[in-house]
Amino acid sequence: MSLLRNKVDYKLYLVTDRDVLGKRDLIESVEAAIKGGTTIVQLREKNCSSLDFYELALKVKEVTLKYNIPLIINDRLDIALAIKADGLHIGQEDLPITVAREIVGKDMIIGVSATTLEEALLAQKQGADYVGIGSVYPTNTKLDAKPVSLEELHVIREAISIPIVGIGGINEDNVTDLMKTKIDGVAIVSAILGKEDIKAAAENFIIKMND
Amino acid sequence: MSLLRNKVDYKLYLVTDRDVLGKRDLIESVEAAIKGGTTIVQLREKNCSSLDFYELALKVKEVTLKYNIPLIINDRLDIALAIKADGLHIGQEDLPITVAREIVGKDMIIGVSATTLEEALLAQKQGADYVGIGSVYPTNTKLDAKPVSLEELHVIREAISIPIVGIGGINEDNVTDLMKTKIDGVAIVSAILGKEDIKAAAENFIIKMND
Ligand code: NI
Repeated sequence: MSLLRNKVDYKLYLVTDRDVLGKRDLIESVEAAIKGGTTIVQLREKNCSSLDFYELALKVKEVTLKYNIPLIINDRLDIALAIKADGLHIGQEDLPITVAREIVGKDMIIGVSATTLEEALLAQKQGADYVGIGSVYPTNTKLDAKPVSLEELHVIREAISIPIVGIGGINEDNVTDLMKTKIDGVAIVSAILGKEDIKAAAENFIIKMND
Repeated sequence: MSLLRNKVDYKLYLVTDRDVLGKRDLIESVEAAIKGGTTIVQLREKNCSSLDFYELALKVKEVTLKYNIPLIINDRLDIALAIKADGLHIGQEDLPITVAREIVGKDMIIGVSATTLEEALLAQKQGADYVGIGSVYPTNTKLDAKPVSLEELHVIREAISIPIVGIGGINEDNVTDLMKTKIDGVAIVSAILGKEDIKAAAENFIIKMND
C-alpha cells in the first residue's frame, strides 16, 4: 500500500455508476474526472459477476495508480483484496467493519456509510478511517440514503474527528454552502459522471469548493 | 481450520437454494439434510446483501460445526473469510482460483466448477481441491451448467487426480448409474431440498449411492 491511511485527500470523492455513464467508457470517464481534480475514486458495481468486477477493478486501478489517487472498492472486500485496492467502503448492509478490519489488516482504508450521529460515532469507534454521511440533498442515485440535514451534519462534524464525506444529491449549486459545515469532502456520482464534459464538471466542483 | 483439505468426504454434497425451499427454514432444512447423510454443505446465495449473506452463513456454520461437516461458501471469498468457512467454491464467472488461493492461504478448501476436460485440468493445475463437473443431467437449477455426458465425466475422471463432484439434475433415479463413473460425490439441490422429507431424501441418496 503506497498510500497512507491518514494522508488521504477526500475533497472530491468520485463514486462510479455505469448507469449514469450510459454507453460511455468507465475507465476513460474516471480518467477525465481525475484530470479535472477528483482526489479519490470509489468503484461501485452491483449485479455483475465477481470476475467482471475483478477485471474492471484491475483496469480502474491502472488509472488511479497512474495519477496516484486512492481507489476504494464498494462493499466487496474480496475484490478489494484481490486487486490490492487502497480501501473498502462499507454500508450498513455490508460486512460489519470490525469483521472487515480483522480480515484486511491495518493498511487498508475502511470507510463507512452513516446516516445518524450514532452510526458515525460507532463507525469511528470501530476504526473507520472516514464516514460517508448522507443523503445531504434529495437524490435519485441509490447511495444508502436517508435524509441528513446540514444541521445534523454540523453536529456530526463537531462530534467526530475522522474525515467526513458528504453524500447524496450534491451538485455545483449546493456544494459551496455544504462545505461551510467543515466536512472534508463530497462524494459525487451524477453531477460529474452524468455531465457531457466530465473533466470540466470536476474542475467546476473544485472551483466551487474553494469559494 | 479443524478440517483437513485432503480429508474431505464429498459423497453427498448439498448445495443450498432458498427458492427451492420456499417458506421452509434454511437452517432447519440443512440440519435435516445432514441428519440424512449429507457429508458437505455449500451455501449459495445470490442477490442478497453482504450483511445478510454473512449473518446467514454464521447460522449455517453453527449447524455444520455441530455435525463436523465442512461448510463451503459459493463465490464470495469475503464471506468465506468473514465466517472462517472451511472452503470456497468458485465458478468460471467468479474470482480466478490463483487470485483466490493467494488471499485465503493454504488451509481453505477451494473447489472449482468445470464443464470440460480442459477446465478440469486447469483447475487441478491451479490448486483446486476438487472440481464440480456438470451439468451431468438436464436441470432447471442454475448451477454454472453446460451438458457433460457420462462419457466425458469418465474421461475427466481418468485424467485428473483430485476429487470430482457431479453437478446438475442428479436424482435418486440416476445417481446409481452416475456413481459408476467413479466420481467422488454428487452435488444436490432440488432432489433433497425440494422434497417434503429432506432427511429421508438424503438417506435415500446414500442408499442408492451404495448400490
Ligand atoms: Ni458549531
